[in-house]
Amino acid sequence: MRICWIHPTTRNDALEPLWAKLDEVVRPVLNKETELEFRFLPRSGNFVRSLYAEHINSVHIVEAAMQAEQDGFDGVFLGCWNDPLWEAREVLDVPVASVSEQSMLAALSLGRRFAVVTVSQKTSVSIENDLLAYGLSDRAITRPVRSIAPESDGDLLAGAVNDPYKEFIPRVEQVAQECIRDGADVILIGCAYYGPLLRAAGYTEIPGTGVPVVDSSTVALKYLETMTDIALQTGLVKSRRLQLKPPARDALDRARQSLALA
Amino acid sequence: MRICWIHPTTRNDALEPLWAKLDEVVRPVLNKETELEFRFLPRSGNFVRSLYAEHINSVHIVEAAMQAEQDGFDGVFLGCWNDPLWEAREVLDVPVASVSEQSMLAALSLGRRFAVVTVSQKTSVSIENDLLAYGLSDRAITRPVRSIAPESDGDLLAGAVNDPYKEFIPRVEQVAQECIRDGADVILIGCAYYGPLLRAAGYTEIPGTGVPVVDSSTVALKYLETMTDIALQTGLVKSRRLQLKPPARDALDRARQSLALA
Amino acid sequence: MRICWIHPTTRNDALEPLWAKLDEVVRPVLNKETELEFRFLPRSGNFVRSLYAEHINSVHIVEAAMQAEQDGFDGVFLGCWNDPLWEAREVLDVPVASVSEQSMLAALSLGRRFAVVTVSQKTSVSIENDLLAYGLSDRAITRPVRSIAPESDGDLLAGAVNDPYKEFIPRVEQVAQECIRDGADVILIGCAYYGPLLRAAGYTEIPGTGVPVVDSSTVALKYLETMTDIALQTGLVKSRRLQLKPPARDALDRARQSLALA
Amino acid sequence: MRICWIHPTTRNDALEPLWAKLDEVVRPVLNKETELEFRFLPRSGNFVRSLYAEHINSVHIVEAAMQAEQDGFDGVFLGCWNDPLWEAREVLDVPVASVSEQSMLAALSLGRRFAVVTVSQKTSVSIENDLLAYGLSDRAITRPVRSIAPESDGDLLAGAVNDPYKEFIPRVEQVAQECIRDGADVILIGCAYYGPLLRAAGYTEIPGTGVPVVDSSTVALKYLETMTDIALQTGLVKSRRLQLKPPARDALDRARQSLALA
Amino acid sequence: MRICWIHPTTRNDALEPLWAKLDEVVRPVLNKETELEFRFLPRSGNFVRSLYAEHINSVHIVEAAMQAEQDGFDGVFLGCWNDPLWEAREVLDVPVASVSEQSMLAALSLGRRFAVVTVSQKTSVSIENDLLAYGLSDRAITRPVRSIAPESDGDLLAGAVNDPYKEFIPRVEQVAQECIRDGADVILIGCAYYGPLLRAAGYTEIPGTGVPVVDSSTVALKYLETMTDIALQTGLVKSRRLQLKPPARDALDRARQSLALA
Amino acid sequence: MRICWIHPTTRNDALEPLWAKLDEVVRPVLNKETELEFRFLPRSGNFVRSLYAEHINSVHIVEAAMQAEQDGFDGVFLGCWNDPLWEAREVLDVPVASVSEQSMLAALSLGRRFAVVTVSQKTSVSIENDLLAYGLSDRAITRPVRSIAPESDGDLLAGAVNDPYKEFIPRVEQVAQECIRDGADVILIGCAYYGPLLRAAGYTEIPGTGVPVVDSSTVALKYLETMTDIALQTGLVKSRRLQLKPPARDALDRARQSLALA
Repeated sequence: MRICWIHPTTRNDALEPLWAKLDEVVRPVLNKETELEFRFLPRSGNFVRSLYAEHINSVHIVEAAMQAEQDGFDGVFLGCWNDPLWEAREVLDVPVASVSEQSMLAALSLGRRFAVVTVSQKTSVSIENDLLAYGLSDRAITRPVRSIAPESDGDLLAGAVNDPYKEFIPRVEQVAQECIRDGADVILIGCAYYGPLLRAAGYTEIPGTGVPVVDSSTVALKYLETMTDIALQTGLVKSRRLQLKPPARDALDRARQSLALA
Repeated sequence: MRICWIHPTTRNDALEPLWAKLDEVVRPVLNKETELEFRFLPRSGNFVRSLYAEHINSVHIVEAAMQAEQDGFDGVFLGCWNDPLWEAREVLDVPVASVSEQSMLAALSLGRRFAVVTVSQKTSVSIENDLLAYGLSDRAITRPVRSIAPESDGDLLAGAVNDPYKEFIPRVEQVAQECIRDGADVILIGCAYYGPLLRAAGYTEIPGTGVPVVDSSTVALKYLETMTDIALQTGLVKSRRLQLKPPARDALDRARQSLALA
Repeated sequence: MRICWIHPTTRNDALEPLWAKLDEVVRPVLNKETELEFRFLPRSGNFVRSLYAEHINSVHIVEAAMQAEQDGFDGVFLGCWNDPLWEAREVLDVPVASVSEQSMLAALSLGRRFAVVTVSQKTSVSIENDLLAYGLSDRAITRPVRSIAPESDGDLLAGAVNDPYKEFIPRVEQVAQECIRDGADVILIGCAYYGPLLRAAGYTEIPGTGVPVVDSSTVALKYLETMTDIALQTGLVKSRRLQLKPPARDALDRARQSLALA
Repeated sequence: MRICWIHPTTRNDALEPLWAKLDEVVRPVLNKETELEFRFLPRSGNFVRSLYAEHINSVHIVEAAMQAEQDGFDGVFLGCWNDPLWEAREVLDVPVASVSEQSMLAALSLGRRFAVVTVSQKTSVSIENDLLAYGLSDRAITRPVRSIAPESDGDLLAGAVNDPYKEFIPRVEQVAQECIRDGADVILIGCAYYGPLLRAAGYTEIPGTGVPVVDSSTVALKYLETMTDIALQTGLVKSRRLQLKPPARDALDRARQSLALA
Repeated sequence: MRICWIHPTTRNDALEPLWAKLDEVVRPVLNKETELEFRFLPRSGNFVRSLYAEHINSVHIVEAAMQAEQDGFDGVFLGCWNDPLWEAREVLDVPVASVSEQSMLAALSLGRRFAVVTVSQKTSVSIENDLLAYGLSDRAITRPVRSIAPESDGDLLAGAVNDPYKEFIPRVEQVAQECIRDGADVILIGCAYYGPLLRAAGYTEIPGTGVPVVDSSTVALKYLETMTDIALQTGLVKSRRLQLKPPARDALDRARQSLALA
Repeated sequence: MRICWIHPTTRNDALEPLWAKLDEVVRPVLNKETELEFRFLPRSGNFVRSLYAEHINSVHIVEAAMQAEQDGFDGVFLGCWNDPLWEAREVLDVPVASVSEQSMLAALSLGRRFAVVTVSQKTSVSIENDLLAYGLSDRAITRPVRSIAPESDGDLLAGAVNDPYKEFIPRVEQVAQECIRDGADVILIGCAYYGPLLRAAGYTEIPGTGVPVVDSSTVALKYLETMTDIALQTGLVKSRRLQLKPPARDALDRARQSLALA
């Protein structure tokens, strides 16, 4: 089985330690037979803390997903909480999963009410819109997606590769404790990168609470692995009616050509 | 006051009678001081019956909206039920309205439970997703957005410019009667073009039911006119916190450049 | 076009500066062709901070609305957040709008989650009941309607005519900041009079938050103006099925006669 | 214990057989110590199939309720599905119950999803609004309140006093069977008079379905009897905070005086 | 009429003062003709602060309820907030009520939004699951069931028999005040024993708030009394369709035999 | 990895062809390293079409799950739509999954609105209660769980082992087509046995609709496999706060002893 993890940005050399760490932390959790390839976007504004910027970036992500399918991948992983999940599912014939949806679904099996702790106010808006569209608000707390403060930036992320305890974890705990007071019993890390870093650092529970801190990326990727396995062995990929019914390819390509994509 | 109506397609000469009719039917309803300009997209796949195709087309629509603001328009009208409403609102500083949202809000003042009769199955999915995101399902019937069958195509639309009674209205009535049986007391026409055509033809009620057939485009455009007037006279345009907080322009432009848009 | 603004009380001379200010602030925002007439109730207990007292007062308001229609007004504005909106709509054949409903609908286009800051605990209950009946709770925060403390009284209102910054605004800000912490990005002023006073005083945003403070009265009145324009030009007023279906006039009059109203 | 049943109309001699039957059917179900007095409204339009007519009639009902309390009744029963329940509760210090609320609450203990079969379209709207305000829609079917057709009139009611099987029951069964197909397992009769008549006639189940037909009046009255007993013996009547907090009596009376009621 | 109150535990001699007090406080509120018998479980783990332990204990409770019916009781009261309400209703032919459901329904008639103050975290989870299953969350506050801290234990309960003011009431008030700040206007005591003790001690309102403290047990028992009276006099017990349709007795007994219960 | 599939009945020799078929169809879909063991209940009434019978049987299932954990299984699969999912999760320290929950979660990734087609009316009630408790009703159609008619029995099941097309599939299609008309785009087979049989027979789509027929058992089992893998490799099993917090073992065992289980 071959799975393609699509990053939401172009390759940023400054973050090489992150990419190495991610590979090191995530890959071993997959089945031995599973091949995982990380791909960066060929083009991207590398900026998604805006509805419209995310919308634009989602075009690049869908295109990368289509390319991955064409390149023979059996499953496609959208490696960012800002994702074009339903659009990608519509046009692909292989399983597509996102960190966001799959980790939220996993959370439903881990406890009673989850919360997502994410990296910026704007991202919290976007994730909450997804959560509502997924129909999951009854299983999450009030204001289910909350941001750390100050928000994350490149320095915080780079620093967390080596030691998340120093700066990132205190910010997470402050928000997570509020979420727990408001009824959360599961905390999802609302960023594709911090989750694996926390797990690698052995930080898997908000101390003293019994509340797990979920490495959403790894969990979601494992769920995709099984979705893909189901597809390969039973043929079940998705509904082909209404929302996910694939469009006629030529019509779709005319749309893509309008952005010089096809 | 200057308002820009953005069509979701490039100009299609075959539909000139439609454009003429639309202008003839809609313009007189606006205030005398209001200037209305119809604009077509410079580029478009002219195809939105697909989540991803709509997503792509939404990029062209937001770009056209930004251009309209730059050209000095005071309000921007997204003239299609497939629209990037929140994305456009985020990046513009003038009022933005869509047929969809504004006509649904208007429907709340016209009755108790509305339904949308639209032109294709795929469009019905898209509109229902919007309706849910707008939080309006308690004011609409179960399965609130339903398509005529057979679906609309260019011929049906062209035919309706001259005589909607022959082919289009019978299809609408069949669906509308089902909606009324399920509790609807207001019917929105879920297409930016058929609404004005029905009104022009004097078709304003599902016969014998007391249920108005709403020319959603005209109603929504009038609401935009007043939103724009409010903005011009009181400065109230939108919240600048969380969802609609505008991104930093340079960061946004880097995102747009990734699609060669800025 | 002639619009009638119905006050929820008899004329109170002590508040003449308020009436003058209101006229001064609101009228210029309307179209030049729009005639606006303020009417007071001929009879009223001038007391609505009670479900039953509001219920009684609503009779006077509906009667005034019927009188306004008979006097040739093209649209009727219920100028208080305690209003008999659906009852009035049922029996009138011209558009009826209330501060409450129309400003809430407008809020949906201004942000993601609104809150109403109102003038008393009892009013907050009443407005929340309306908000729930309008089906809008998914677009508002938890406990979406909150009162200033201490509650408003005649002195506070009279004082705010000249200078709302001294006493009224600090009370608003305290509540509004709580609402913002709970997720609000739009604040509606839950009183027909304070809204225009705040706008007149240039207070249009909770400082430093990006959250607009909406002069609900002016916004709602503008929406009524466009609803009335739509009615005049296209004939669309309301559904005549189920909830808003008008009763037989003679039967209704027998009911009115039981209170010596007809 | 003394309970006052308030009819929603003035006394109509033509319906004497109904009043006699009602007394005969309902009284024996109460405890021996309970005194029941039926009271008609001194004034009424005797017409409630209109939101505004119901609103007016509700004034008479609240006044009658206040009078009943003043006359020493220990509990007040609003004997019509069109009722001013919360308004009456606010201003009274003894338990107030309505057919509607109490029978719906009882239904929650009788099955999983109830439906109300009522006597006119307009009444169905009114009851459904109450059902929504009571927050019970999750326990009722879709379109939970449905009317018989043709609607009820005086002749149907008079006829049902002697023999409901001939005309009324067939109309009920037609609607009830639809409700059962849509998931109902309890049917409430949505009229204060037909319920006791059906029970008196031994019609207590939609034949062959296991679905009880609830004489809502009797059930609701029994619930009021126990609420009143609780009040008499433990002092528990209602919350005195927020919605049901009683207004200052002098202010309320000024409001009542505006309709010449106090 | 004979009613059986089923305790959720075996008889615990150490709590004799509680049983005596309970009898003393509750019995007089019932009608004179009503016979009340308290029964303890013949077997029990006497521990329900666990989903599975509660599940096991529920078997004993349903068995006791079946035995009570067989012994001729006319109504069965499940005297604990951890209860197998729907299971018992399914298999019995007489009315069954629980503290939890009936007191929540009663709360709907007492105010606008209730909260339950209970005795342990685990119990709060269980009650909230019931509240959601009953479809009542729109009438309760956010996080509608909250526990005192420290949690209750045998000493606290024993102490409260003589003087609840010393230790129990301060813990209740702390939680109740939070609930009131979050919008509650009715407080239900979420334990079958503390409610009567508080009432016996004259503690019926959170001081200074107008919010009643409901002795849920007594209220629920009175509701059962009237449900039973309705059943005896009109035959109305429950729906016999879908959820509450009784299973074939022999099949049920085979299931019971698997636990050596039949 | 060792997974234990717990049947909800004792071993029934008459169904040996089913057990063989099940093993043959399901096992190959698992990873090669995964050991799967089917276990029957040592005791059972073999009857769950009753709330109380299901409740009793759930005790046997939880006990079997505890035994499986003690026997060293890494994951436990509750192989029936009638399941004690949350109770089992509470007391076990390894992942527990049920056909019901996991296949519903999987459905959320396969389409927009699912429906469950199950084998009896009583089962449909039970599954719908679970669906509501899981908070998934916004992603399912109205009346989301529907039964075939006539209901399934041993003969139908035995017959379907060899040829489901003859009798079972026509019944499924009739219900499924109704579900699709009501908006379903994914059909879950609401029985642990029929799902694999349909898949084995190559019946994977409601013909001509694009709607997949999901073998819920296989899909759910695969999800459990990945949940178990996640647990083994990262330690993430469940929240240990509130609902799923494990009880003290000695207290739990006292409860179990009351049924002679410990």
